[in-house]
Amino acid sequence: MTTGAIPLRDLTALVRSELDRVGDELEIDLRPESPELVPFVKHAASYRGKQLRAALVFLAPRALGRTTVPAHHEIAKIIELLHTATLVHDDVLDGATLRRKLPTINAMHGPELPVLLGDYIYARAFHMSVQLEDPTCSRELADITRRICQGEITQIVHRFDFDWTVARYDEVIRDKTALLYGAACKLGAHYAGCTAEECDALERFGIELGMAFQIVDDCLDLDGDEDVVGKSLGTDLGKGKLTLPLLWLMRDADHAKTLRAIMESDKTDLEKLAELRQRLDVNAAVEHAHSVARQRVEAALGALQGCRPCPERDALFGIADYVLARRR
Amino acid sequence: MTTGAIPLRDLTALVRSELDRVGDELEIDLRPESPELVPFVKHAASYRGKQLRAALVFLAPRALGRTTVPAHHEIAKIIELLHTATLVHDDVLDGATLRRKLPTINAMHGPELPVLLGDYIYARAFHMSVQLEDPTCSRELADITRRICQGEITQIVHRFDFDWTVARYDEVIRDKTALLYGAACKLGAHYAGCTAEECDALERFGIELGMAFQIVDDCLDLDGDEDVVGKSLGTDLGKGKLTLPLLWLMRDADHAKTLRAIMESDKTDLEKLAELRQRLDVNAAVEHAHSVARQRVEAALGALQGCRPCPERDALFGIADYVLARRR
Repeated sequence: MTTGAIPLRDLTALVRSELDRVGDELEIDLRPESPELVPFVKHAASYRGKQLRAALVFLAPRALGRTTVPAHHEIAKIIELLHTATLVHDDVLDGATLRRKLPTINAMHGPELPVLLGDYIYARAFHMSVQLEDPTCSRELADITRRICQGEITQIVHRFDFDWTVARYDEVIRDKTALLYGAACKLGAHYAGCTAEECDALERFGIELGMAFQIVDDCLDLDGDEDVVGKSLGTDLGKGKLTLPLLWLMRDADHAKTLRAIMESDKTDLEKLAELRQRLDVNAAVEHAHSVARQRVEAALGALQGCRPCPERDALFGIADYVLARRR
Repeated sequence: MTTGAIPLRDLTALVRSELDRVGDELEIDLRPESPELVPFVKHAASYRGKQLRAALVFLAPRALGRTTVPAHHEIAKIIELLHTATLVHDDVLDGATLRRKLPTINAMHGPELPVLLGDYIYARAFHMSVQLEDPTCSRELADITRRICQGEITQIVHRFDFDWTVARYDEVIRDKTALLYGAACKLGAHYAGCTAEECDALERFGIELGMAFQIVDDCLDLDGDEDVVGKSLGTDLGKGKLTLPLLWLMRDADHAKTLRAIMESDKTDLEKLAELRQRLDVNAAVEHAHSVARQRVEAALGALQGCRPCPERDALFGIADYVLARRR
């Protein structure tokens, strides 16, 4: 596992002014008419974070020699909003109390507000997308939202399902996480005038990258440092989510029994995690999952074959390294 | 209060075949790719009920002498889906355990599934609307969703706010309920080729009708019969929602104190309702609220001045009566 990866901020330096503009404009676009909403929208804005998906909207077409067009700003904002909306709803789903080191809206106000706030932000994204002349973005947005929900629901229905498989895990992380990365790249390419083949290649890059991202995320839930990760750990154990490292442990029938007993016990998430670390080889499981994530990243880089050497292509390479090496 | 109103089914008989087609097509359109979603989508479909909003899409333009166009079917489906999505999310918001005499998804699976299911259904509506050539429906849909959320959030933030006013109550019920009725009428008119003035008039009809509908709904929470209404009663008392009949009781400072003590007590919703009935004149409060609803309905009918006598206009008149008289 590499640890000396370049900070994401440096990797996205090429599009820093674009990302700053996206952030500034979102602040204005999201300003609600009703004063009641101000504190909640502000809180949700604090979830925005790394703007990795927005960076892909700008970088992907440039890696193919295309230039930035005005629609890219809108698409970057729309993708960031959709991502923020899913994070806000995730807080209800996870019962999480901590995100980006801040208490979640859920923890502060119960489940009602984040449900509505997520809907509100999603409606803003939808509203923005239907202003674009070319309906490709709106259609993609609607389609992806549906598949994100489908992935999340499938995951919930199969909580504590100890017959869960790696193939189904792959399907779920593609739907719930990776498609949005794919859409960021594909829409960036489409609105820059790339060919259908180029759009497909960039979408593949995004999807493979997104799957690697989710696998690393699932590892961090097991071996992360809560202070660094900025969110609660061991939640997958508590919620019965059989992630890739856990599925690897289950290849051995005895280990599967142990894991099941730990996950089905009445302990807290952190107690379950401590017991898991004590009784099973969590490090090896995480290492295996990381090797799968590395294969995904290699597939992602393979999709960039058509790009000639340029700083934007190198930035995409760097982002791929970052996704593997990140600790939060 | 009238009780001999014509059943809604008879009032919408003129568009029965259209509504049946809407229902049939929705069943096919909503068929999920993933088998995991089938039972939930089916359950949500059972929420659909009266299709009152869909009926307005067809009836409103016909009351102005226009004919039904293919887009009306799409719009009717979209509006029904949006309404269904808000009902599914409402179950999380209300903590309701009963809707249309069935246990809510919330009661069966916790808050996570209805959040995602509502998002899923909303995304389907969005997806359908972006297939329409004319983007008016998509823009309206995005705008209304945002305002529905805004209305709901404002209501939540002001729970147990005993300084709440009738003006703010009006604002909230317009946003969270009435705008969707307005949109059904306006979009029906727009896609039928009505003039801007005609669209505005029909929107006004829908909004006034929708406000009356919500006021009657708020009355039913206090004086309905759970077996007839098909959902839990007294929930507004439990949730601290100061609805129109409750605001009327609060004009008297002593009554306001009594109401506050009841609402802030630790009792169950039904115990609060029983105590309210015992200590304050709930019947008079409901009667007052009904008289306001009646004024709204009169304003709605006023907006139909431009319609020449025809069966569709009479059906709209009948629906207005129904909204006042309904017991569920």
